Amino acid sequence: GAAPAIVHAQANIRWRLASSFPKSLDTIYGAAEVMAKKVGEMTGGKFQISVHAAGELMPAFGVLDGASNATVEMAHTAPYYFFGKDPTYALDCAIPFGLNSRQMSAWMFEGNGLKLTREFYAASGIVNFPMGNTGAQMGGWFRKEIKSLADMKGLKMRIGGFGGKVLERIGAVPQNIPGGEIYQALEKGTIDAAEWVGPYDDLKLGFNKVAPNYYYPGWWEGGPQLSLYVNKKAYDGLSAEYKAIIEAASAYAHVEMQARYDARNPAALKTLVGQGTKLFRFPKDVMEGSFKAAMEVYTELNQSNPAWKKIYEDYAAFRRDANLWFRFTEAGFDDFMQSQKL
Amino acid sequence: GAAPAIVHAQANIRWRLASSFPKSLDTIYGAAEVMAKKVGEMTGGKFQISVHAAGELMPAFGVLDGASNATVEMAHTAPYYFFGKDPTYALDCAIPFGLNSRQMSAWMFEGNGLKLTREFYAASGIVNFPMGNTGAQMGGWFRKEIKSLADMKGLKMRIGGFGGKVLERIGAVPQNIPGGEIYQALEKGTIDAAEWVGPYDDLKLGFNKVAPNYYYPGWWEGGPQLSLYVNKKAYDGLSAEYKAIIEAASAYAHVEMQARYDARNPAALKTLVGQGTKLFRFPKDVMEGSFKAAMEVYTELNQSNPAWKKIYEDYAAFRRDANLWFRFTEAGFDDFMQSQKL
Repeated sequence: GAAPAIVHAQANIRWRLASSFPKSLDTIYGAAEVMAKKVGEMTGGKFQISVHAAGELMPAFGVLDGASNATVEMAHTAPYYFFGKDPTYALDCAIPFGLNSRQMSAWMFEGNGLKLTREFYAASGIVNFPMGNTGAQMGGWFRKEIKSLADMKGLKMRIGGFGGKVLERIGAVPQNIPGGEIYQALEKGTIDAAEWVGPYDDLKLGFNKVAPNYYYPGWWEGGPQLSLYVNKKAYDGLSAEYKAIIEAASAYAHVEMQARYDARNPAALKTLVGQGTKLFRFPKDVMEGSFKAAMEVYTELNQSNPAWKKIYEDYAAFRRDANLWFRFTEAGFDDFMQSQKL
Repeated sequence: GAAPAIVHAQANIRWRLASSFPKSLDTIYGAAEVMAKKVGEMTGGKFQISVHAAGELMPAFGVLDGASNATVEMAHTAPYYFFGKDPTYALDCAIPFGLNSRQMSAWMFEGNGLKLTREFYAASGIVNFPMGNTGAQMGGWFRKEIKSLADMKGLKMRIGGFGGKVLERIGAVPQNIPGGEIYQALEKGTIDAAEWVGPYDDLKLGFNKVAPNYYYPGWWEGGPQLSLYVNKKAYDGLSAEYKAIIEAASAYAHVEMQARYDARNPAALKTLVGQGTKLFRFPKDVMEGSFKAAMEVYTELNQSNPAWKKIYEDYAAFRRDANLWFRFTEAGFDDFMQSQKL
């Protein structure tokens, strides 16, 4: 890139960020804008980052390579998109029956998550920062009700990320369809079901009009974290001040994105239910069969993929302890509040 | 030209922060240190904030006045400490049966929380920033088991903050005892019960040795948020860059503090249980009786305190919607994960 080897603390810099998301996903896409704006404010406009939607500079799934080879200095993405390259990427985002949002932040910021994922990304010349979480996503829209695990057999379902690997194992047929084409596929019956994000994002795409059955929980995305990628050479060329500014600005956007989802989903859910959406919890055997399938996938990966194994073992130990703790006072408080007339 | 602007934006400043907490509470006290360190890094050491423990510059509960009258430029506190002055402060921290940690952040960052609390603090000449959350606290240590609401009658319990107002109403006798004196009071039987924070902080004080029954959930603190106070005149005198740097640094510390609790509580809980601590959920009638008492307190405050009413009505609406939403996919995911062998 054009940046000198070591940037003066207050040098003027212009960087580009390639997002994997369209502008219409204002929550997720917006996190990159929030970060860029904060960096600009903190530096009196000297460090400017322009944010580019998917397709503008490169395709949605091209941003890993783009940040790796310094076509752009930064990218914002959901790392599980790259599970085909290596499933280890998903551990920096979400795996089926993984950590929830708070647990993921705890693992990243206070557990070994950030350290281990950074070691993994070093080979790609990328420095990663947690930047946003959607919270637990919904399980998606189904044209027909799902009564048992048997109903998942042969079911053609649009699903993003690593979850498809587990869906396959319970007999479903995962489909990789871009957001903009899901509605038509669901309407025509080319697919039987589709997951996207949650009420706020789903409502905008109108899935409820063509598939009235809305399932939860999205067990393949209990707390998907978005990641800011910074090209390592570009990062190393920054002053210590600018490095710290990126770290703090991404943490600000991290809080802000989860807050946007948590603040906007409730009203959207009410609108959806008002329009006739039927909410269902996945049947017990669907959850249990999927959990079993997921654990089998992880056992196999532990045997075949050393990079995965190194990170997953730490992740899994953290998940076990976190759920042991969260089941008491967090769950006890939430459970009580959720059953009150407020 | 650019030169004078740079000088202004990058002026050397030394500020002092008075914490309401002792250094031994490394999680909470540590949040102020994390923020100060990040501000230093972002400014190349030009903006330095020294962090002072409770008692060093002023007493723990003197920090509101200290930041208000500019004895210090900053304070870090749990605003419900000031409920005696005005219960409205508690809405910037925790009220019984209030928002959980994620909901509180959502209300602050994306709801009307930050806007409304800032209006309230304006009269004191303070600008507030969310800076840390402990997550749902435990319900505390009891010398004897609590079998029903009747067992709360006459119970002398150490409790911090606004929760005492509700405990009184169900017949308990709240006691205001500093952290360092709780152990002895519990041991001697001067008090029957004491709440502090959660496993990580409680273990250090050794309460399990003198009161083996550990209750959850801490319904008076489902997601207590800590607050950074900045003296408004000092804040207004800062460059736009420094203002943004405080905002981002406090958000970084906000994420980091919750992560510390979430990462450290599990091991401490295991140690406590290994040492014989017995975990109990509060009986249903204790929860329901306390909930009813809390709602009565809020109704009365709505009638007597316009500042409270203005903020509480917004808070309560947010709480209702947030719990409606969280009960589906978040609770469904957590509930399933917590019941698996991980």
